[in-house]
Amino acid sequence: MTTHCHDVRLHGFSSLASTEQAMAWVDAHAERLLAEMVATEDAPGRVLYAPLQAADDLPSADRAAEDGYAVRARETIGAGAYNPLVFALQEPGAPLGPGAAALVTTGAPLPHGADAVLPFRAAHLDGASLEVLAAVAEGTGVERRAHEIRTGAPLIDTSCALRPQDVGLLAALGVERVQVVRRPRVRLVIAGPKRSVGLPPSRDADGPMLHALVARDGGAVEDVVVGADERGAIARALAAPGVDAILVAGRTGTGPDDEAPLALAEVGELAIHGIALRPGSSTGMGRVGAVPVVLLPGDPLACLCAYELLAGRLVRRLAGRDPRLPHPVREAEVGRKIVSAVGFVDVCRVRLADGRAEPVGSVEEGGLASAVRADGFVVVPSPLEGHAPGARVRVHVYGESAS
Amino acid sequence: MTTHCHDVRLHGFSSLASTEQAMAWVDAHAERLLAEMVATEDAPGRVLYAPLQAADDLPSADRAAEDGYAVRARETIGAGAYNPLVFALQEPGAPLGPGAAALVTTGAPLPHGADAVLPFRAAHLDGASLEVLAAVAEGTGVERRAHEIRTGAPLIDTSCALRPQDVGLLAALGVERVQVVRRPRVRLVIAGPKRSVGLPPSRDADGPMLHALVARDGGAVEDVVVGADERGAIARALAAPGVDAILVAGRTGTGPDDEAPLALAEVGELAIHGIALRPGSSTGMGRVGAVPVVLLPGDPLACLCAYELLAGRLVRRLAGRDPRLPHPVREAEVGRKIVSAVGFVDVCRVRLADGRAEPVGSVEEGGLASAVRADGFVVVPSPLEGHAPGARVRVHVYGESAS
Repeated sequence: MTTHCHDVRLHGFSSLASTEQAMAWVDAHAERLLAEMVATEDAPGRVLYAPLQAADDLPSADRAAEDGYAVRARETIGAGAYNPLVFALQEPGAPLGPGAAALVTTGAPLPHGADAVLPFRAAHLDGASLEVLAAVAEGTGVERRAHEIRTGAPLIDTSCALRPQDVGLLAALGVERVQVVRRPRVRLVIAGPKRSVGLPPSRDADGPMLHALVARDGGAVEDVVVGADERGAIARALAAPGVDAILVAGRTGTGPDDEAPLALAEVGELAIHGIALRPGSSTGMGRVGAVPVVLLPGDPLACLCAYELLAGRLVRRLAGRDPRLPHPVREAEVGRKIVSAVGFVDVCRVRLADGRAEPVGSVEEGGLASAVRADGFVVVPSPLEGHAPGARVRVHVYGESAS
Repeated sequence: MTTHCHDVRLHGFSSLASTEQAMAWVDAHAERLLAEMVATEDAPGRVLYAPLQAADDLPSADRAAEDGYAVRARETIGAGAYNPLVFALQEPGAPLGPGAAALVTTGAPLPHGADAVLPFRAAHLDGASLEVLAAVAEGTGVERRAHEIRTGAPLIDTSCALRPQDVGLLAALGVERVQVVRRPRVRLVIAGPKRSVGLPPSRDADGPMLHALVARDGGAVEDVVVGADERGAIARALAAPGVDAILVAGRTGTGPDDEAPLALAEVGELAIHGIALRPGSSTGMGRVGAVPVVLLPGDPLACLCAYELLAGRLVRRLAGRDPRLPHPVREAEVGRKIVSAVGFVDVCRVRLADGRAEPVGSVEEGGLASAVRADGFVVVPSPLEGHAPGARVRVHVYGESAS
């Protein structure tokens, strides 16, 4: 399936797709993967394949909500520090006899007939007889059947990564295995530092960074092809089977050796190359068979920004997660002017200080170090030329985590 | 080292430590662990042991910031679409001759003598001669040496988990291994569901939940002891060597079989038992030798809340992370009244809808399902009896992730 490919090398892009078009392409070509079963204890961070409903009431019977003595509430009426009423202490398992009390601990089922739990401080035990020093109302210290969850109630929705408490609840309900969305297998193709840069391949920043980003978004790097620095090698890496998505880093620009788009067009379809996104305008995307491919710029900052908005969206969609940016959002007031280019979606790195967002350098400058110095980023839509001081903006905060 | 242990069984707590005292105990008894070396690619999520400074300028020489032709800017003065100036195209490696231009790609070092990069659209190549169609100013398209990072500049601080871009920058600087804080090895002791509850051990919710929480906070569960349901078994699990911290779940209350505090007092020191924290008031803490131990309530909701405020703080401190709650904070207006108890720190689960926080049930009710239904929680300090509708509160948001 070879498609038309406009060769931008030594010419530059004659036109750019909008970032919205690129996002729409991702949405149209990345479907949530199918299900697999995993042990509940391995499920944190995974996404349920189908919403889960409660198969039972929880608790399945009335139970003690605190440690104490199970009693019939009406039998305690009139009890007081100066008028102790004496109850017979009986075994907890049997139905509660008249005038009797039974020791219960938090979470234990109430003996049949009991309707309240008397706290220890309201009683005094003397051998097998219990002096009750206060009256309790019916229901005190009792957690009613189905108080927590009623059979059939919706429990956990899809599209969110399972949190620690979600996994705890599944375990509490006796769910030992759950059906989750299969983890996307991602191939990284590191198209290699440019020969002219003269850096050894060990200085590739994109591989380790993309590895961490893919894992954050619920994917798993299945294999990494390094040093694919000419068209044939890139094409072979694209055509090899066994993955759900391919991210190529590097060789996407307008230099003579930027052959990644040509390689994709050769073995599949290059749908988009050149996007009105800064940094990251040389990003491309397409498919080999049904496998979506994103061509990311080799420059690490552009690679990061294009990953966040486009390749990450692809991984998140495949993983069944919310496709939007996964960073927590904090509202902030612009401190120093944020300058952006009309016609481009700009990813502006900012620092947050005292609730104010200050740009870290200009949009296309500062390299990866600017993202390291930043607390987050502001996405400036293409019609705007920036944000004036005092404007309210939404900052996507890097690296705050509570998965 | 056996210490005095007030037996609260069948009596209840005669006094409670404040949550602040419990946090202070954690702070006094949990020091950041020592360092280990890891490969940079394995460093995401780890914490640097020492702040890192740049050992080199980045870039280490002036380089092209875009694809194009390296030129001397002053030689392009006067060039225009109707007045093309002709340059000789030379090899990029050699010093730039007079009247010459050399092809460069983004990131490539500039040839000696060049001081600007002419974009492709401003030139027309005809064999070995280049028609220059526009003048460029000195510095155009050039990234100056040390523009991104100057030698000796502080690069990455400690106390934050390394983010994808941090790891990318380290790789770009040629840092192949980094010194990070050793990952805390945590033992989970699941003190078993109470015999009276009659649930099979597979229904333990705390184990899988704590596993995920410890991992979130930068620790690693080294071993899990299950079914330690009497004093001797708990004491043996506490006394075994090989971990940096121990979390016991269950058997902390006032029932006759709540022997975890007694076990800790027997083999070490029970420093605190009973905390003015809801849910989670039966939490305890102490040490076996130098190893800090937190006794968490068996009830899963209380276990979760006590983990977040106390045990998690311990793990985060050992791991070198910020000890405060790791959840992203969102400011919200209280919708329905949040009711809390004076004298207790209350962990109130809330849902967020349209920027308003609505409590999910009351503080001590609803079980783990209330934390599953919640988007986050509000920590109400002990002097307050809650928050009225319209009040602004800080919501710690569960499960938003961008690690």
